[in-house]
Amino acid sequence: MSAQTLLYAQSGGVTAVINASASAVIQTARAHKVKVLAARNGILGALGEDLIDTSKEPISAIRALAHTPGGAFGSCRFKLKSLEADRAHYQRLIEVLAAHKVRYFLYNGGNDSADTAAKVSRIAKEFGYPLICVGVPKTVDNDLAVTDCCPGFGSAAKYTAVSVLEASLDVAAMAETSTKVFVYEVMGRHAGWLAAAGGLAGDGSASAPPHIILFPEVAYDEARFLTQVKAVVAKVGYCVVVVSEGLRDGSGRFVAEAGGKDAFGHSQLGGVGPALAATVKDKLGMKVHWAVPDYLQRSARHLASATDHAQALAVGKAAVEYALAGRNAVMPVIVRSNDAPYRWKIEAAPLDKVANHEKTMPKSFIRKDGFGITAACRRYLQPLIAGEAPPPYGKDGLPTYVRLKNVAVAKKLPPYAVK
Amino acid sequence: MSAQTLLYAQSGGVTAVINASASAVIQTARAHKVKVLAARNGILGALGEDLIDTSKEPISAIRALAHTPGGAFGSCRFKLKSLEADRAHYQRLIEVLAAHKVRYFLYNGGNDSADTAAKVSRIAKEFGYPLICVGVPKTVDNDLAVTDCCPGFGSAAKYTAVSVLEASLDVAAMAETSTKVFVYEVMGRHAGWLAAAGGLAGDGSASAPPHIILFPEVAYDEARFLTQVKAVVAKVGYCVVVVSEGLRDGSGRFVAEAGGKDAFGHSQLGGVGPALAATVKDKLGMKVHWAVPDYLQRSARHLASATDHAQALAVGKAAVEYALAGRNAVMPVIVRSNDAPYRWKIEAAPLDKVANHEKTMPKSFIRKDGFGITAACRRYLQPLIAGEAPPPYGKDGLPTYVRLKNVAVAKKLPPYAVK
Repeated sequence: MSAQTLLYAQSGGVTAVINASASAVIQTARAHKVKVLAARNGILGALGEDLIDTSKEPISAIRALAHTPGGAFGSCRFKLKSLEADRAHYQRLIEVLAAHKVRYFLYNGGNDSADTAAKVSRIAKEFGYPLICVGVPKTVDNDLAVTDCCPGFGSAAKYTAVSVLEASLDVAAMAETSTKVFVYEVMGRHAGWLAAAGGLAGDGSASAPPHIILFPEVAYDEARFLTQVKAVVAKVGYCVVVVSEGLRDGSGRFVAEAGGKDAFGHSQLGGVGPALAATVKDKLGMKVHWAVPDYLQRSARHLASATDHAQALAVGKAAVEYALAGRNAVMPVIVRSNDAPYRWKIEAAPLDKVANHEKTMPKSFIRKDGFGITAACRRYLQPLIAGEAPPPYGKDGLPTYVRLKNVAVAKKLPPYAVK
Repeated sequence: MSAQTLLYAQSGGVTAVINASASAVIQTARAHKVKVLAARNGILGALGEDLIDTSKEPISAIRALAHTPGGAFGSCRFKLKSLEADRAHYQRLIEVLAAHKVRYFLYNGGNDSADTAAKVSRIAKEFGYPLICVGVPKTVDNDLAVTDCCPGFGSAAKYTAVSVLEASLDVAAMAETSTKVFVYEVMGRHAGWLAAAGGLAGDGSASAPPHIILFPEVAYDEARFLTQVKAVVAKVGYCVVVVSEGLRDGSGRFVAEAGGKDAFGHSQLGGVGPALAATVKDKLGMKVHWAVPDYLQRSARHLASATDHAQALAVGKAAVEYALAGRNAVMPVIVRSNDAPYRWKIEAAPLDKVANHEKTMPKSFIRKDGFGITAACRRYLQPLIAGEAPPPYGKDGLPTYVRLKNVAVAKKLPPYAVK
């Protein structure tokens, strides 16, 4: 029997633990004598036959991947359209898979990637090419359907809660003569999961920061917001605000509309933090500061949640096991059986059920006044940031992150312009 | 012999380890049976007779202070002017100290605080009030004179280096189809120490991020900057820029002039990161992202440097020992005797030598082209971010930071309006 081959690709925004899933995929495959190729820069590499032979990496490097943030093989924002519109691309994909005798295709990403993996599975069947497609969940936004939570989110959530807690101690110490209002902007286009995670910095009491959370699920009302800020400053002495980049006003317009669109057609956001800070300064005359951690929140492997890390490893391992068991067009998802003590397990869900559905925050997770999280939300979020999984550090004071050699596989096909 | 009393106050922007100095001050004083009062909100509390009795805190809380960021007793931005201009304030200060039989005054801050402590010492002598004044160094900006480095800086430097490293891995993974240029803004009004610390994320090779550092010490030239960005993107595929908030153009104007002034008369900055990102987007048409960690960089106790933490403890301990030994108007400073292996010790320096001098980066620390750090700079910075000193974490996944009771001391004097 010749060795079987698996193709692994990363898709969309990377996270602090997507490489942990990659590490588990490769280690599990190696244990089953399956060869793992990785697509360079995600699906683009698969289309361009730009493949990496992971068998050239020593096991020490593959193990170190589990504590290295970013996307070790490169990722991309490139969405395959419908089978009709992008037929040539899907066909090319099958050609590349066939040329390298790939039997298993593992696609590590979010909603869009689940959709692509499902479509690849369909077209392979149409062409009569024997292929098992398995999704591997990943997104800091936690907006993936079916799964209880999503690898990548827990670590970003922990980063957010710890950062809000620490910055709030700073603001509290200085508020008498300096900054009265601090605005912290989190990622999250349409779902307020990371904004909600900021709420874990406090114990839920009215005086504990953050005092105001602004969710994309709740229409922004400037007058109500400013009234709330004033009331908090009067009572507590300062006010910490966590705001989601996706905050919208009553007409559905993003509060910080930056204009551009990314390759998936999503609006490019950023700047709602400074925009709100300016509003507070202008309308209330209070000294303000704002922070926009941007990519830091999704790459802060140094502050990964142990729960998140364990789940990222678990979905990687399960994806390979499903593939080898012949379970096509599925994705390992996380199923929660208890909040406290937290219990979870991995199950397989059909890719079609995950694809293109977006999980927003349930109404019951947002406080009635729209400015905070409920006890139910806290029960849900708490275990996801629990536990520490720090990387090893070198003598230089930096985490020892691995850089793979990423040795290219010889091409067998003529070049292909992805356009 | 009645118990002696020491007054401790925190001043200016807080850091991840200023409370470690406070912890060492209180523990050392307790060991010598000296009672420690703390001024609430720094010198404002001292003037307003708003004092805290630290003897009401259990030793466990004082120990936990050593791993808690922020300023446990409150700090402030309020600078006493000259003895002539603010004579009433200085006089009031002596009255408060006398009313509470304070024999030792420890002021934990930066340049301005060293100046104030020196002046308090002078006026006490003038009034014939027996007082020992000792400064305790602190600032994330590392711009304090005489001392080789400054407690607070090493942890902010480590936060900066790790954050730039992690975000760069993210950018590298996505650059093919997403962000090409990432701009990371650091604190530092006049000195580029924190910007330089960003350079530790890379090994100094041309392809390793950060690819461009913009220092306040080097006049910003937009054309040269954009040429450099283009060249880096062409060669590496992406470009990571670290920029100091204090970046100025050839005429000395801050590149991101926000207009306001703080209580010390310093210009209020912020926004150079997004400003540069907009320039790159508009002039080069590249996709950009930017991060402004703001207070996060000076409060990230979870990522404290072990060197910095040890030095923060050491200056606190030494300050009390100097005071008890009757050494007036001095400040414990850090003296380096070797780079690698790193060796340092604490010595006393006259407050007058420290006060109001600002230590900018030596020319020899900035690369000839103005866009990076030299090997000499690296040798200087490296030991300051070495070692980890993580706080304990609770089951909730958050660091267990302490909140003191801060029990007020009964007032003995009539109220005083600080104005």
